[in-house]
Amino acid sequence: MPDSTPLANAENPARTLRRAIRSNDHTTHTSGQAPGFVQANMAILPADCAREFLTFCQLNPKPCPLLAVGNAGDPYLPTLGEDIDLRTDLPGYRVFVDGAEVDRTDDITSYWRDDLVSFPLGCSYSFEEALLLGGVPLKHIQHGERVATYVTNIDTTPSGRFHGKLVVSMRPMKAADAIRAIQITTRFPNVHGAPVHIGHPEAIGIDDLAYQHFGGAPPRMDDHDIPVFWACGVTPQIVTEATKPSFCITHQAGHMLVTDLKNSQLSIL
Amino acid sequence: MPDSTPLANAENPARTLRRAIRSNDHTTHTSGQAPGFVQANMAILPADCAREFLTFCQLNPKPCPLLAVGNAGDPYLPTLGEDIDLRTDLPGYRVFVDGAEVDRTDDITSYWRDDLVSFPLGCSYSFEEALLLGGVPLKHIQHGERVATYVTNIDTTPSGRFHGKLVVSMRPMKAADAIRAIQITTRFPNVHGAPVHIGHPEAIGIDDLAYQHFGGAPPRMDDHDIPVFWACGVTPQIVTEATKPSFCITHQAGHMLVTDLKNSQLSIL
Repeated sequence: MPDSTPLANAENPARTLRRAIRSNDHTTHTSGQAPGFVQANMAILPADCAREFLTFCQLNPKPCPLLAVGNAGDPYLPTLGEDIDLRTDLPGYRVFVDGAEVDRTDDITSYWRDDLVSFPLGCSYSFEEALLLGGVPLKHIQHGERVATYVTNIDTTPSGRFHGKLVVSMRPMKAADAIRAIQITTRFPNVHGAPVHIGHPEAIGIDDLAYQHFGGAPPRMDDHDIPVFWACGVTPQIVTEATKPSFCITHQAGHMLVTDLKNSQLSIL
Repeated sequence: MPDSTPLANAENPARTLRRAIRSNDHTTHTSGQAPGFVQANMAILPADCAREFLTFCQLNPKPCPLLAVGNAGDPYLPTLGEDIDLRTDLPGYRVFVDGAEVDRTDDITSYWRDDLVSFPLGCSYSFEEALLLGGVPLKHIQHGERVATYVTNIDTTPSGRFHGKLVVSMRPMKAADAIRAIQITTRFPNVHGAPVHIGHPEAIGIDDLAYQHFGGAPPRMDDHDIPVFWACGVTPQIVTEATKPSFCITHQAGHMLVTDLKNSQLSIL
């Protein structure tokens, strides 16, 4: 085999998965797919509110960690993957007009406009991989559940029309694992970073952990477990929905943009 | 003033303090003295058990973070300060024979022997300074108290005759401060490093936080406070006392070796 064979590209599982999504060979969620590669939440907004949303993300980096920002009208994100086409490369999109969902589709080519700006946001899949590699067990993954998420009483920092409460995900763990999890996720500011709270749900407006607001049922709290709360990418979703922009496209839950970045590349240390 | 004036040495507050201690102009504890400089706990043991103790420290780096190790018979520690003489430069020593205290003194010149090995151990003063600089309030300091410490049910890793339970210090704080404190102290492995436990005292054998085993009375736990536990330098003291070595010298509580190292130099990041 000659040395010039482009093995790296040919075997890039993220690119292979994106091509399968683009050709409708992969049509479901992306959870557990292309392990090791960064997956991104997606918000696509018209220029008339994109600047306000960009500022919102910069003011609230824990729930809204920007991995890149698209140019207006440009469906490509070359810093996340040379061949990415946002119109076709997610397996599921939701299309909103004036805050109301008007379509769920796997191709937004017909909706694309010259003024749309894309906002790929880091997602907890990346830090969960780092936690598992670091030896921190995650019960919801052991149980095959989605993580439980809760609306808190913590206000995000508003930007123009964008405002709302912080949404958090909760993972229960032993104290030593919680300390380790804080250390590990501190290394990943681009995918929500360190926890925002530990220990006392009622201190952040969560009356009963048993009743999650979104996501899966929370795992059982065992003796001496500590609930550890991270800022969650559901925050920009509910903030955007509440703002009712004239037009908006997001990914469908779990149907993410799979990028060429490695999770390990996001570690700041 | 000529450029060659040795201002740095003349104004080094650690060296100034050591000289005042050596000349008996400073005879009390060193808490709050020479701020910014690393202070060290001290254990001095004869060669016949020094190797076991060195191994004990290496096996238990969180309670026993070695800042240096002396050569047998050598009272100097040039890596911690060019002029340090361990026989005179601490304001208070305790001398033990077969585990029984036989003297408290401010000068151990007459006790010095050719086989004594010194073990300077990092102390929480260094990370407490980093916490305060990082904006984490410490209630025991606000109240002018020593930190409360507790014997846990956690076994240290034994080495020869040296074995015993881990002693921890406890600082109550709000959740956000506890997360920040874990981040900050992770940077300081040479002065106990990250906490060993958070949240559930009973999980580590502490039945009632109100009853400390050593140190000052614990601060009040306010609503939503989390108790944060660090490995404590009292551990090697009680382990050594229980081992009853034929001969041993330690610092008196709070009467530490003041070194030329800056606390900020100990940060690994």
